Amino acid sequence: MNAGGPDSDPDTGSDRARRRIGGAVLVTGNPNKVREAQRLCGFPVEHADIELPEIQSTSLAEVAHEKARTAWRRLKRPVIVEETGLELVAMNGFPGPLVKWMLDAIGADGIARTAHALGDARAAAVSILVLHDGSSSCIGAGRTEGELVLPPRGDHGFGWDPVFRPDGEPGTYAELGDRRKDEIGHRGRAWRALFRQLSCWQ
Amino acid sequence: MNAGGPDSDPDTGSDRARRRIGGAVLVTGNPNKVREAQRLCGFPVEHADIELPEIQSTSLAEVAHEKARTAWRRLKRPVIVEETGLELVAMNGFPGPLVKWMLDAIGADGIARTAHALGDARAAAVSILVLHDGSSSCIGAGRTEGELVLPPRGDHGFGWDPVFRPDGEPGTYAELGDRRKDEIGHRGRAWRALFRQLSCWQ
Repeated sequence: MNAGGPDSDPDTGSDRARRRIGGAVLVTGNPNKVREAQRLCGFPVEHADIELPEIQSTSLAEVAHEKARTAWRRLKRPVIVEETGLELVAMNGFPGPLVKWMLDAIGADGIARTAHALGDARAAAVSILVLHDGSSSCIGAGRTEGELVLPPRGDHGFGWDPVFRPDGEPGTYAELGDRRKDEIGHRGRAWRALFRQLSCWQ
Repeated sequence: MNAGGPDSDPDTGSDRARRRIGGAVLVTGNPNKVREAQRLCGFPVEHADIELPEIQSTSLAEVAHEKARTAWRRLKRPVIVEETGLELVAMNGFPGPLVKWMLDAIGADGIARTAHALGDARAAAVSILVLHDGSSSCIGAGRTEGELVLPPRGDHGFGWDPVFRPDGEPGTYAELGDRRKDEIGHRGRAWRALFRQLSCWQ
């Protein structure tokens, strides 16, 4: 799908992994996440447009696992759910998976302003994907360190993409564009990790 | 229970209300909330020490209603649940009911520092109590406006009490002590509102 080091290897080559992903349904109410998933997998991913209730927690894994179980109970077939968070160093990792509510309340620039006002712009973007088939789960996790910048910039992506600049990159996720975001971004890393897990999973 | 204007009237006089509260179980894993409930009701309130999962939302009412339904499914008897939030004006009401996670991450002083760093110390303390009996719900809501102060001060209370100074009061919840906090605090107002609702509820 793209050139680069091992990190950019989509690892979508395993037939076993492709079959597992292809037999599952990605449950998300966010069309942007569906588009990224299609790009990252390199083949059409079935999805269900359902907004699932999520439990309150700052543990990304806990929220994702519970969401996967809820999705499976609802659909009774293999599901993939994704949970994403933004960890502000200035707030000891808060809001994590609760970032969507902070984004709703004060926007991407408000999140960046908060970090700057507290004197530490560093943040980590994190994603966990869980494929759950009713009896077992397979997990892919991705993490990208960076900093929050002001003012927001760039036209690609969604959510807080315009204020998150990954370490070592010249611009924000929204400036880098899809290809580079997929290569070094938290969600691309999570999908590749899920493929790797599934490639060796019985 | 205490003197003062109508706001400090505990409104616990209605036999009907006392019977309804007395026949329910307060579901909370927080012993401080149990103590406040006993004080505010003026009679022992049965409680169940269960930490219920809560849904992610910045709507206090939505979180409380869902928690009440979960508690009822678990215990199959009338339940009372409480949900409390802290709404920062500088963050357009965030974190609201998600404040417990912000408190875990950066402490009471961290919450106050965030508001100060963003240039607006104003905040509102809010509580909703829901009594649910499996078929219907009765709600009491309380709200207290104030500001977040630094450094934290006072020895009473819990959570963010040491940084929340209600408008018109000389000190924080933690400095005012139980009696005054009950009179003008968000949780006292919510309990009195619940009693009022139950007094006229069939």
